[in-house]
Amino acid sequence: MNDLFLRACRRQRVERTPVWMMRQAGRYLPEYRAIRAKADFMTMVKTPELAAEVTIQPVDIIGVDAAIIFSDILVVPDAMGMPLEMVESRGPVFRAPIRSRSDVDALNVADPERALRYVMEAIGVTKRSLAGRVPLIGFAGSPWTLATYMIEGSGSKEFKHVARMMLDEPEVLDLLLDKLATGVRLFLEAQIAAGADAVQIFDTWGGFLTPDHYKRFSLDYIFKIVSNLHRDGAPVIIFSKGANHSLIDIAGVGADVVSVDWTADLAEVRNRIGEKVAIQGNLNPSYLYASPEQIRREVRSILRKFGNGSGHIFNLGHGIFPDVPVEHARALIRAVKEESPAFHG
Amino acid sequence: MNDLFLRACRRQRVERTPVWMMRQAGRYLPEYRAIRAKADFMTMVKTPELAAEVTIQPVDIIGVDAAIIFSDILVVPDAMGMPLEMVESRGPVFRAPIRSRSDVDALNVADPERALRYVMEAIGVTKRSLAGRVPLIGFAGSPWTLATYMIEGSGSKEFKHVARMMLDEPEVLDLLLDKLATGVRLFLEAQIAAGADAVQIFDTWGGFLTPDHYKRFSLDYIFKIVSNLHRDGAPVIIFSKGANHSLIDIAGVGADVVSVDWTADLAEVRNRIGEKVAIQGNLNPSYLYASPEQIRREVRSILRKFGNGSGHIFNLGHGIFPDVPVEHARALIRAVKEESPAFHG
Repeated sequence: MNDLFLRACRRQRVERTPVWMMRQAGRYLPEYRAIRAKADFMTMVKTPELAAEVTIQPVDIIGVDAAIIFSDILVVPDAMGMPLEMVESRGPVFRAPIRSRSDVDALNVADPERALRYVMEAIGVTKRSLAGRVPLIGFAGSPWTLATYMIEGSGSKEFKHVARMMLDEPEVLDLLLDKLATGVRLFLEAQIAAGADAVQIFDTWGGFLTPDHYKRFSLDYIFKIVSNLHRDGAPVIIFSKGANHSLIDIAGVGADVVSVDWTADLAEVRNRIGEKVAIQGNLNPSYLYASPEQIRREVRSILRKFGNGSGHIFNLGHGIFPDVPVEHARALIRAVKEESPAFHG
Repeated sequence: MNDLFLRACRRQRVERTPVWMMRQAGRYLPEYRAIRAKADFMTMVKTPELAAEVTIQPVDIIGVDAAIIFSDILVVPDAMGMPLEMVESRGPVFRAPIRSRSDVDALNVADPERALRYVMEAIGVTKRSLAGRVPLIGFAGSPWTLATYMIEGSGSKEFKHVARMMLDEPEVLDLLLDKLATGVRLFLEAQIAAGADAVQIFDTWGGFLTPDHYKRFSLDYIFKIVSNLHRDGAPVIIFSKGANHSLIDIAGVGADVVSVDWTADLAEVRNRIGEKVAIQGNLNPSYLYASPEQIRREVRSILRKFGNGSGHIFNLGHGIFPDVPVEHARALIRAVKEESPAFHG
């Protein structure tokens, strides 16, 4: 088994830097689009064979060092009783958003073994197909990030209802976050039990918050998850986008890896938290539009920033865009594989 | 004249913290919507009497301590030969974006006295109407931020063409940024000559860049503007959104004020750069959806973060949203006026 990814998560010696890409099972791959043409997004997510197939595609096609189960962070609220719809051109929509204490009370703490069984089945199918070629990552949204979608009812720029609830009725928000923290923890444990070799917590909207509110409403609940998680040796990765102001606190919640976007300087990040955690990142996903030569240059620059030794997992600072040429994605993976051995001498 | 704003920009003693809001002349005001119902956005921008009227509205209606001329950062490319269209639901559009060296060569360095005369006239009308009640701020986009719109042709999430040009043909991008730096400098000088008491450079998309590329493609050109600017005593404010990673460098380009969004902790910011520059910010604009009581609490928390003494201009970390209740905007201004004297004892 190629266990570079797992070894790097644990800051153990590796021969080269492992690499995978957020949203690597996605529309930039013609093979993905072929399946997507026949099934809608949620059907793919809820059909273990389809989910497994697209999960493995980037391993076969571009050669990443880890697979991540094809799913969506919003399956958790869906399982808690908020039916998720994917609306063309609008994205995810919850028709009945959470606006009051009684809305929160009406939510089930998801029993992942039942309501999210399809994810665990997809993990099982994927693991059998992968047959140990690369590790498989499970994931979930952070309580805060899930709450923003559940309260707004869809993606948002203004965060109107979230801001109102946070400041005017923090006790209701806390109740919601607490339920989510339990649901997410159980879900991550079920994924690990089903075969996930590592798990990542996506906190996409951490950057909406001031540093104080980030700690209070996002990181504290991530801590609650991580510190109670029966992880059975599986590394935990935290990605709080836009929260570089709190790196030291993030590194302190007990996760193995902290993922950072491109606004962080990896040398500085390693200097601040590299003794405590491995670091994942941090190529700007837009840079994949440039030529393969320039992609290689950027890869070298990031590898140099991190410097010699283990504890780095190469990744993007956000998901790959759907119209990036496959050849460019492949060029990225190739460049990391060819350029990184020099940093593990 | 209420010169609290100008004194705070210069870190001189003030009796209370001055306050204004980015996008304060905007749709959240019924009086603005009444004018907007009769004239489209660009007509308002290009008609000095209309621009002056909406510029002054927030001074009269909610009591801000500074006015900012009603305009748009994209008037500069418009004046350079790229006609700007405001398309409903899509925002600003340039039909013929910049994609090559010959596109850049074809741009005029705007002669602001001619091509942007309407801005200077609006400043003149506004100054006469204000009659010294509060200072008037002029502004421009940063070369980098203007370039992103000119290259993409509209607002963008992927920054596809920008990333390509930046990495594959940096010499073309430099040529464009250089022209823009000259045009922006001349434009800011013309605004100051027409009566602007201070100027702000909006670098809305600084956060798209890695720290190294931010310095190379955004901050260096801001430095070029600031260091060559005949400012006649007018303070210069820099707002590079998402570039908190480079605060010390930003504070070093020679501006008087650095504006920060809500992801910065003002105590830390003051600690790092407060000896060199005044600091503007940093309420999360979404927090204005909360109740007036909670808005006041957030105001107090920000004032406490900055601490005692001058050098703080209260503002939002981004423009006010169109559906914020006027009463909440007024509550913000009132809270700053009532809570801040305690910090200037």
